[in-house]
Amino acid sequence: MKKSEILIYDTTLRDGTQGEHINFSAEEKLRIARRLDEMGFHYIEGGWPGSNPKDARFFEMAKGLPFRHSRLAAFGSTRKPGVRPENCRNLRTLLKAETPTIAIFGKSWDLHVTDILGISLEENLEIIRDSITFLKTREKEVIFDAEHFFDGYRLNPVYAIETLKAALGAGADRIVLCDTNGGALPHDLTEAVSKAATIVPPESLGIHTHNDCGLAVANSLAAVRAGVTMVQGTVNGYGERCGNADLTSVIGNLQLKMNRRCLPDASLRQLTNLSYYVSEVANVRPLPFRPFVGRSAFAHKGGVHVNAVAKNPQAYEHIRPEQVGNDQRVIVSDLAGKSNIAFKAREFGIDVGDNDAVNRKIVREIKRLEDQGFQFDAADGSLALLMKKITGVFKEPFTLQCFNVTNGKTGKDPSLCQATIKISVGDETELTAAEGNGPVNALDHALRKALTKFYPQISEMHLVDFKVRIVEGSEGTAARVKVLLDSRDEQEVWSTIGVSENIIEASWQALVDSIQYKLSKDNINKNA
Amino acid sequence: MKKSEILIYDTTLRDGTQGEHINFSAEEKLRIARRLDEMGFHYIEGGWPGSNPKDARFFEMAKGLPFRHSRLAAFGSTRKPGVRPENCRNLRTLLKAETPTIAIFGKSWDLHVTDILGISLEENLEIIRDSITFLKTREKEVIFDAEHFFDGYRLNPVYAIETLKAALGAGADRIVLCDTNGGALPHDLTEAVSKAATIVPPESLGIHTHNDCGLAVANSLAAVRAGVTMVQGTVNGYGERCGNADLTSVIGNLQLKMNRRCLPDASLRQLTNLSYYVSEVANVRPLPFRPFVGRSAFAHKGGVHVNAVAKNPQAYEHIRPEQVGNDQRVIVSDLAGKSNIAFKAREFGIDVGDNDAVNRKIVREIKRLEDQGFQFDAADGSLALLMKKITGVFKEPFTLQCFNVTNGKTGKDPSLCQATIKISVGDETELTAAEGNGPVNALDHALRKALTKFYPQISEMHLVDFKVRIVEGSEGTAARVKVLLDSRDEQEVWSTIGVSENIIEASWQALVDSIQYKLSKDNINKNA
Repeated sequence: MKKSEILIYDTTLRDGTQGEHINFSAEEKLRIARRLDEMGFHYIEGGWPGSNPKDARFFEMAKGLPFRHSRLAAFGSTRKPGVRPENCRNLRTLLKAETPTIAIFGKSWDLHVTDILGISLEENLEIIRDSITFLKTREKEVIFDAEHFFDGYRLNPVYAIETLKAALGAGADRIVLCDTNGGALPHDLTEAVSKAATIVPPESLGIHTHNDCGLAVANSLAAVRAGVTMVQGTVNGYGERCGNADLTSVIGNLQLKMNRRCLPDASLRQLTNLSYYVSEVANVRPLPFRPFVGRSAFAHKGGVHVNAVAKNPQAYEHIRPEQVGNDQRVIVSDLAGKSNIAFKAREFGIDVGDNDAVNRKIVREIKRLEDQGFQFDAADGSLALLMKKITGVFKEPFTLQCFNVTNGKTGKDPSLCQATIKISVGDETELTAAEGNGPVNALDHALRKALTKFYPQISEMHLVDFKVRIVEGSEGTAARVKVLLDSRDEQEVWSTIGVSENIIEASWQALVDSIQYKLSKDNINKNA
Repeated sequence: MKKSEILIYDTTLRDGTQGEHINFSAEEKLRIARRLDEMGFHYIEGGWPGSNPKDARFFEMAKGLPFRHSRLAAFGSTRKPGVRPENCRNLRTLLKAETPTIAIFGKSWDLHVTDILGISLEENLEIIRDSITFLKTREKEVIFDAEHFFDGYRLNPVYAIETLKAALGAGADRIVLCDTNGGALPHDLTEAVSKAATIVPPESLGIHTHNDCGLAVANSLAAVRAGVTMVQGTVNGYGERCGNADLTSVIGNLQLKMNRRCLPDASLRQLTNLSYYVSEVANVRPLPFRPFVGRSAFAHKGGVHVNAVAKNPQAYEHIRPEQVGNDQRVIVSDLAGKSNIAFKAREFGIDVGDNDAVNRKIVREIKRLEDQGFQFDAADGSLALLMKKITGVFKEPFTLQCFNVTNGKTGKDPSLCQATIKISVGDETELTAAEGNGPVNALDHALRKALTKFYPQISEMHLVDFKVRIVEGSEGTAARVKVLLDSRDEQEVWSTIGVSENIIEASWQALVDSIQYKLSKDNINKNA
């Protein structure tokens, strides 16, 4: 390890799955692990083989995989009280995972020892010692996770430090200080880490934080400043309760702001992709406002800011977004002037050239639609499409003949919903019918069914969010509604919009835009 | 101000609305401002009256409101270069807002002065000085926001400090150090704040941070430790790019961890409610993993944790969730406790008496519905109705036989929407048909047409708002949706809810509740 390098220990596959709504199959875990390995993460904690069969299966499958950069770690607890290490099922299961590295957690807060485990403080030290000794004699790299170290240090510092000494004495290769409850503040944490660093050599010291105070990233950085050389966390900060330290922020800060190398620069430029990829596999919505990698992280809305950023990006951007593979975006709002449009066109890779007439036509069309309640700051996909159509780069890939949606309900039974649709592409027409859980879903199904024949790549995309809002200044169920759809494929997420007094009509517009945007990316059109 | 008190300056209504997807009408701003005032926030920044007519209208309406605890602030910039303060439209608009406090921002980073404004460093100091002097002679409390202070201090500390001196010399009451780009790290920020505190008395010093590094909360806390006594931020951290400092975390940490009083304890217990309320008004999904106030913040998934928490909550919880009005959760369960129910029943004037069986039945039913995605904190009308039905105070006033809604579209013509409905009241049945601008509107028309014959007072009520949201954890157009309706008559406004995978079904439930609530007020029932 070079002096300024920080080891990144990813626990998305283990602690990350403690988060509500976060679940990975063994196969999905393998895909993520491969991705992390390619990017040069130093450690990948794959799971807790003793706690569930899925994790055991993951390690079984991982045995055949050549990891080029990462060391794979299996996670578990120290031995059970009253059981010899060689008879402890948990420790034996850990060995069966056949990973080069094993991470085991033990108690360093006296309250947990006496109140939860119900054993003596000395017995806990013995458990730590002989569990580690047992694994070391099996030639494993052993990482000791000092659970609740910071609560322990706050309330009984002498004992907390004793547990570190026990682990070190038994031969642990690395010791990780865990803020298990996520309650530590940076200044208290700094003091505790500094003390620990007088016992454990900094090159063997790590940090593991949780975000219960909104401070997981700050605490990780504070620990690095206090001497630790390994940071544990998860991609996107997934994890129990409020989550773990978000490695996308930790790495961004360490490498770009504190000059501590974590990943190769080329991998750093993959950080935004990684964030999307993991949220895609986890099937949860990517947070737009996530630091460094979110879709809004370099998005500018206020007119003052937009002008300034055009003059000098540094004026309102703390780093260059390309460094983490993200993009600057200008959010087009009703202040949309020509300079914003030119800026957006460049962003979308559309050539409006010096053609002032085309530029003016785009501005006029946006203003007309915004008067009706369209809001393009929230719908980049629809905006790109509109520009591509006006500049003639893209033509309608299909024509709607007609659709009909019916929704019937009898007594207390749930509603039944069906849609029929007739479209034409070139000289061919297609009539399909489909059911759905609701009118928009039925329409979505019928439209895809009709189009997939002509444009099979539609199957790569799916809808991830559906928002409905009343357009300002209208009332009741006759109000004009605005439908926003977020769609995604493997590369990106895009938003489209529809506005109408009729929610089905508005949804239809957003649905059509969403599909057309997907097709416009590859510029595929069979309707010409 | 007591020694240990920290002033909380909320800018949800101004900087918060710079966030993508965050929009408030003037009326919604008023509702939020009233709520913040009730809770004892020290300052509420209502908007930038010079930048848009909506904000100007907000201040117009706010003039009539008695704020009990909060000072209302209007926000704007220092005067334009080359314009005398008394001729500057921006400063004059600020005065027209008639607020006790005015916040103006000026440049403290030389790069912005020379590269963006294109003026000399000395001219910028003059602008700061005479803008503040102008406002002070109009008897305003003036807060000077030193924009980009931390970038300025990093690159040209002498000039950055000069701008603070200029503001202080001109009579600014408070000076707020802004990390406008959100790029500062806590240790650098601490150093800069400490330096500023040698120039500006700490009791006049404030901090304003952004979350571009995931450090907005940590930076706010670091600034308080370095001496500032005012923290600016937004509820839920809404704001441009990655957002502002999330006041729910800032207040939680300051008051519960650092012993710096921000709000009365009773208001602290409203923190979770406030977070939900603001996300509801903004119509954005509440983040489940938000520190302190999120639905998952004290939710335990891991078996080890669940057992330990049962023995001693302190084992895996950094604070008691009740302190911020949140709840411990082990499996999916929600706010409905028996005491809450009794409280609500009293509020609705429903006598549940000492009947424990009825009380338990209500709790069970609420839990069952909340598991499906119902959310009664946003739908008092539906909750009152549910209680009235279970206690037997109110019976269904009509029975649905069936309905059918069709929506057809041909080519580019707008959709046509029709509904038929058959209901019975007592022995009579009624079959009607109606058109509408959309399926919910058509259904609303048909239902009213059918019912008015039996219950003419339905004509006194009408729908004023219609919101649709995706229920957390479900995706795409097949996701479960939650429909919230606001209705009103001459006396009051009430909210009702429906949840289903089908938006028409969910709307139907909310529509029926809305009408039944109206009838339940007069306890009118002809269906018995």
